[in-house]
Amino acid sequence: MSAETKFSPVEGFEPPALGEPYLLTPGPLTTAYAVKQAMLRDWGSWDGDFRAMTADMRRRLLALTGDTKGEFDCVPMQGSGSFCVEAMLGSFVPKDGKVLVLANGAYGLRAAQTMQYLGRAYTLIDKGDYLPPRGAEVAAALDADPAITHVIAIHCETSSGILNPVAEISEAVYAKGRKLLVDSMSAFGAIPLDVNEIRYEAMVSSANKCIEGVPGFGFVIAKKTELEAAKGRSHSLSLDVHAQWATLEKTGQWRFTPPTHVVAAFLEALKMHEAEGGVAGRGARYTKNRDVMVAGMRELGFETLLLDHWLSPIIVTFFCPAHENFAFDRFYGLMKDKGFIIYPGKLTVVESFRVGCIGRMDEHVMRRVVEAARESLAEMNVPDAAPPRTALEERAKLAA
Amino acid sequence: MSAETKFSPVEGFEPPALGEPYLLTPGPLTTAYAVKQAMLRDWGSWDGDFRAMTADMRRRLLALTGDTKGEFDCVPMQGSGSFCVEAMLGSFVPKDGKVLVLANGAYGLRAAQTMQYLGRAYTLIDKGDYLPPRGAEVAAALDADPAITHVIAIHCETSSGILNPVAEISEAVYAKGRKLLVDSMSAFGAIPLDVNEIRYEAMVSSANKCIEGVPGFGFVIAKKTELEAAKGRSHSLSLDVHAQWATLEKTGQWRFTPPTHVVAAFLEALKMHEAEGGVAGRGARYTKNRDVMVAGMRELGFETLLLDHWLSPIIVTFFCPAHENFAFDRFYGLMKDKGFIIYPGKLTVVESFRVGCIGRMDEHVMRRVVEAARESLAEMNVPDAAPPRTALEERAKLAA
Repeated sequence: MSAETKFSPVEGFEPPALGEPYLLTPGPLTTAYAVKQAMLRDWGSWDGDFRAMTADMRRRLLALTGDTKGEFDCVPMQGSGSFCVEAMLGSFVPKDGKVLVLANGAYGLRAAQTMQYLGRAYTLIDKGDYLPPRGAEVAAALDADPAITHVIAIHCETSSGILNPVAEISEAVYAKGRKLLVDSMSAFGAIPLDVNEIRYEAMVSSANKCIEGVPGFGFVIAKKTELEAAKGRSHSLSLDVHAQWATLEKTGQWRFTPPTHVVAAFLEALKMHEAEGGVAGRGARYTKNRDVMVAGMRELGFETLLLDHWLSPIIVTFFCPAHENFAFDRFYGLMKDKGFIIYPGKLTVVESFRVGCIGRMDEHVMRRVVEAARESLAEMNVPDAAPPRTALEERAKLAA
Repeated sequence: MSAETKFSPVEGFEPPALGEPYLLTPGPLTTAYAVKQAMLRDWGSWDGDFRAMTADMRRRLLALTGDTKGEFDCVPMQGSGSFCVEAMLGSFVPKDGKVLVLANGAYGLRAAQTMQYLGRAYTLIDKGDYLPPRGAEVAAALDADPAITHVIAIHCETSSGILNPVAEISEAVYAKGRKLLVDSMSAFGAIPLDVNEIRYEAMVSSANKCIEGVPGFGFVIAKKTELEAAKGRSHSLSLDVHAQWATLEKTGQWRFTPPTHVVAAFLEALKMHEAEGGVAGRGARYTKNRDVMVAGMRELGFETLLLDHWLSPIIVTFFCPAHENFAFDRFYGLMKDKGFIIYPGKLTVVESFRVGCIGRMDEHVMRRVVEAARESLAEMNVPDAAPPRTALEERAKLAA
């Protein structure tokens, strides 16, 4: 019996087969029907067929990093993306290490909170809701504190949708002789993180982001030397990356029950990712999604939190309109009635909402999103989607 | 849009729709096609439809414990079952607590290993491969060490398939004024663990066991007083049961991305579980599965490791035949060719293998399993499946 599921190449973007709304969210997201169909059978986790699927998945993920020298390895880990971030920090940061956490949103702060749970030393550069951490300030922070051994950066901070300048951060980190860990949760697979271009020790992402699988596990991609050095370091049996890696290498099996169906779906998603042209192809579609959607929303009067330079092709934050008739809950419901699930904002200063660009959607879908927003505004009697002046003042800080 | 998936009542046991082998394993296991079909759509994890599904799932799971007084609550947790065991130990055992681990196989030893990772005190009663920990020895151990605050017992130890005497253990624990935690991973949903019959503080199980869902998360069911007391105790952000519970109570959402499709499948599985008559109905089918399968295998000359009194209706360990032509790998392959995936043994003393009784299978399937074993023996030229004398001597220890 083959573990192979039927591979259907990209040939247009079928609507959700069961008529559910499109998910304009940072994941779980709208996936291809073929990805979900791959979950229609049961696999034995001990059986050779499933081991082969795990090996194939690890190989395909590694290939996305451009690691041609065999320096890196891929370790899948059960749980959500945050489980992987915790696994990475607990496994690669020695007990007497110290981490510089670069935060500009919820995910950076969550990394700091994870360090607190671990009881290991860390220090925080907190840029607030969305301002990007820059290479120069990282360098200065490293100069100021020789105890820092590692830096963790968030590739795309989905709180605001900003694409953080990981390349310049990496340069600063290695110029100062420290090590970089990257949370590339919502970026990997659509934004390059090539080991030949950007130096790092380890990164994490998860199944239900830009590869367009369904949620249930994530993965760590790390230098083998780091994986070896991680032995005995983890604070957690379940989240011990070294132990998971060692078992995979020895037996081809996950240490504990893997989410077999989710893995099968992910393997199908990886094949579709490859057929679309890999990271470049996927990134190009998402970029087009963003450009079409942002242009349309701006025509309606909506303003983005970020200037174009910082906009990721992953998710975009818009200010809520200043008009008194606008209420996010009502807007959410009206958009959902039209088949689109949007996402609440996470800014502390002004009201906002977010629209995702990732998942099994193309520019035609994004045009319909804009049309739905236009209709929803009309139904709410909001003639003008322009944000309050305070929001624009907020944005001006970023330009400065 | 409703989160409801079409519910098909139990009406005979269709074979795996895609022709894959039956999984005679302790999970992942063979699930109903309707369960897998529930994964054919995408849900937004923030959306109200999915929150309603989570609430429904928690209610249904709680109902299986017989908690009519509202004393307990249910907290789902991403990851495999072992993640839940670690979450339970890390959240309910205070940092200055001490755990008595009752081990008679791999899962008991894994609980001990988890305590080692946590760096919290524990002591171990290790009964070896399969001998059951008894109430009297638990009482004696608690008398001997007043520092022990908690006891963890494995309900069904799938290493051997033994059903441990949790009721008598619970009596001993509470007679000595200590607290019981139960790993009911492979038993919950088929073997009663009614809070009105057996006293305990918390238990864990997972989606892909006797409720017959697919793997991707587990759940903790605990006294609310214990959940409240767990605040600030966990060694892990991801595995913090209190934090997960508090967020669920406050927002109806999981803290971090839930495995939405796996949850949808599990909800369908819970409905089918109810339609089958709940714990009693499910347990009766598995018991019949076991009885038919064990009787048939014994007719072929196979011997069970355990005497009937200790056999669980979950999984059964058989000794490998003494005949020189028998080789497990060959037997495994021949059985798989016939559509049945069996499971390797885990005994340290003698060669063995295991056959599971759980999953979407009935006695007709079990008769075909026996028939496949008969044919496989013939193909291997093994005329007699009787085990070596050392195996029977091993078994005699249990009778003593």
